[in-house]
Amino acid sequence: MPGKRILVVKGSPREKGNSSLLADQLVEGARSSGAEVEVIILQNLNIQACTACDACLEAPENGCILEDDMQVLYPKLLRADAIAIATPIYWFTMSAQTKLFIDRWYALESPQGNALKGKTFGIILTYGDTDAVTSGAINAIRSFEDMFRFLKAEVAGFVYGSANQAGEVKSQKDLLARAYKLGQKMAC
Amino acid sequence: MPGKRILVVKGSPREKGNSSLLADQLVEGARSSGAEVEVIILQNLNIQACTACDACLEAPENGCILEDDMQVLYPKLLRADAIAIATPIYWFTMSAQTKLFIDRWYALESPQGNALKGKTFGIILTYGDTDAVTSGAINAIRSFEDMFRFLKAEVAGFVYGSANQAGEVKSQKDLLARAYKLGQKMAC
Amino acid sequence: MPGKRILVVKGSPREKGNSSLLADQLVEGARSSGAEVEVIILQNLNIQACTACDACLEAPENGCILEDDMQVLYPKLLRADAIAIATPIYWFTMSAQTKLFIDRWYALESPQGNALKGKTFGIILTYGDTDAVTSGAINAIRSFEDMFRFLKAEVAGFVYGSANQAGEVKSQKDLLARAYKLGQKMAC
Amino acid sequence: MPGKRILVVKGSPREKGNSSLLADQLVEGARSSGAEVEVIILQNLNIQACTACDACLEAPENGCILEDDMQVLYPKLLRADAIAIATPIYWFTMSAQTKLFIDRWYALESPQGNALKGKTFGIILTYGDTDAVTSGAINAIRSFEDMFRFLKAEVAGFVYGSANQAGEVKSQKDLLARAYKLGQKMAC
Repeated sequence: MPGKRILVVKGSPREKGNSSLLADQLVEGARSSGAEVEVIILQNLNIQACTACDACLEAPENGCILEDDMQVLYPKLLRADAIAIATPIYWFTMSAQTKLFIDRWYALESPQGNALKGKTFGIILTYGDTDAVTSGAINAIRSFEDMFRFLKAEVAGFVYGSANQAGEVKSQKDLLARAYKLGQKMAC
Repeated sequence: MPGKRILVVKGSPREKGNSSLLADQLVEGARSSGAEVEVIILQNLNIQACTACDACLEAPENGCILEDDMQVLYPKLLRADAIAIATPIYWFTMSAQTKLFIDRWYALESPQGNALKGKTFGIILTYGDTDAVTSGAINAIRSFEDMFRFLKAEVAGFVYGSANQAGEVKSQKDLLARAYKLGQKMAC
Repeated sequence: MPGKRILVVKGSPREKGNSSLLADQLVEGARSSGAEVEVIILQNLNIQACTACDACLEAPENGCILEDDMQVLYPKLLRADAIAIATPIYWFTMSAQTKLFIDRWYALESPQGNALKGKTFGIILTYGDTDAVTSGAINAIRSFEDMFRFLKAEVAGFVYGSANQAGEVKSQKDLLARAYKLGQKMAC
Repeated sequence: MPGKRILVVKGSPREKGNSSLLADQLVEGARSSGAEVEVIILQNLNIQACTACDACLEAPENGCILEDDMQVLYPKLLRADAIAIATPIYWFTMSAQTKLFIDRWYALESPQGNALKGKTFGIILTYGDTDAVTSGAINAIRSFEDMFRFLKAEVAGFVYGSANQAGEVKSQKDLLARAYKLGQKMAC
């Protein structure tokens, strides 16, 4: 049996940021369980904001008409069995990079439901503040929960923790282990 | 006594979208009460995502080093007595356009607190779903509340309502009136 | 095929309060779809607060040792296929009557999971304030959502709306209809 | 200058429960800063659920007509400069004991605002689950935040942490210290 196809999307501008490092652990966990993993770094891509032009609603067969790097990401999203999103918490919710990417899912809507329906999601969040409440990670968690309920998607889990300086997360064994296990879970 | 200076920031990609039309009402209310109002449409500007380069922390006197239209917006933010933000709810929180703008407030941090400290904020939210819970507007509200607590900013109020088709809000007299009154309140 | 067994629990102190009237609509909807419905009014019962004595954990076969009207409710909860809870919003979450009842579910925990696992829940909320955000209904909604996720229970739906004076809800046809439909859904 | 009068309300059924032990630290911190502190244990009192009879609205001069131990607590609440509430998280929000007490604040409403207006509040929360999100402490936090905004009360702070077995919190120096400091802050 071929392994699950997992798309890992990094929403941090920092290549070695804490959420990115946790995502790397998730990747290792997923690969250790036989998954085929691809990693995307949003900061390196050109992704425009959704313009709400509704061209995708009027002609779903054409999809989104904005010509940017989402045209490469859309087929990857459709092919994936599971999607992991790793984002730092900025200003009490997910990063703008991550939100740009998500807003473009609008073009995946169809009368049969969104094309992401039934896929499995895993979320990684890091923040400089002390906890998930004071940092506002809870607001991102609630947004993601609402999304997955709307999409009728499966939720493999949320891994989140406090880590401020880039790379600081490396000393947090428990957090690293939880990200690794989330990867294993998404691969099953 | 000169009127309050109010900056109104539209985070919708649609020039005549519902949140934009409510923002226009807020503008009228504010002007009727003697405020000097400037309107910004984020969709028409080039605003990059914060790269978390921390140059602004290392040399606060230089501010953000990203050379884009935020360089025009920063002085407007500093000059304003009050700031209104109008955003549609996309994917269970504010639009990516709005989040791009907010993430760049990071460069306004200083040892004395953020430069937006003490300013007055007003928020307008619209959504296609039936209410503030199912739409996820609540998640944006919680993020904004957390921001304003962090900034030690004043909250003039939140105006939010359901309106799907572009322009639909024009028939909602109560919602229009609430936006108008929020503008009046921000002008006082 | 015999109809579903539905237990409807009213958490309002007012017999003809708005949440109670909506619960009556839910009952009618459920009965119209063939369900066998029983209605409980918490205000009329003697339900003590959970004392966290942990006797139920130490001897699960004995259940809760507090001798009050929960001893009558426990078997009804176990027998029910679906459980509806109707509560007014007081002080930005569910009523104390409702919370007293829920805290006692602790005695339904076992190594195999809570005895309410897999059951279907429907929730009715009313509030005097204008909407689900300003009233704090959202906090009750989040608590219930968290409960049902923990219990691995099914969620038939949430019906909530603004109604202040006792009985005011009778003029709100849409809200009445939604409660009726929730009853039908829970019966299927 | 006489010290602040602080009322500390314990909402746990366990006399030596974790939230109660943190409350004891808060008491010590407050006394060390010169406050006059009184401690109330809700579990030992007879507090009925608010019946929404509205007698208190119709004749505010008489206050609540329910004859139970709240009649002793009302004057204590009015006299206090600051009020601390310590509650365990049960079923994803505050304990029923705590909610019974809070619902009775309804009788403190008047045309001039609630009698708790302007007072300072401090909140202590403990939970057996891993963090403030999974435990649902966040829902209690949001309810309290909404209450204090409504009351126009001051918020001295929230102290919360994970501790399951009764007394476990004694080994958590950081949490104990934060409760102590909250007491000091409330005394100033």
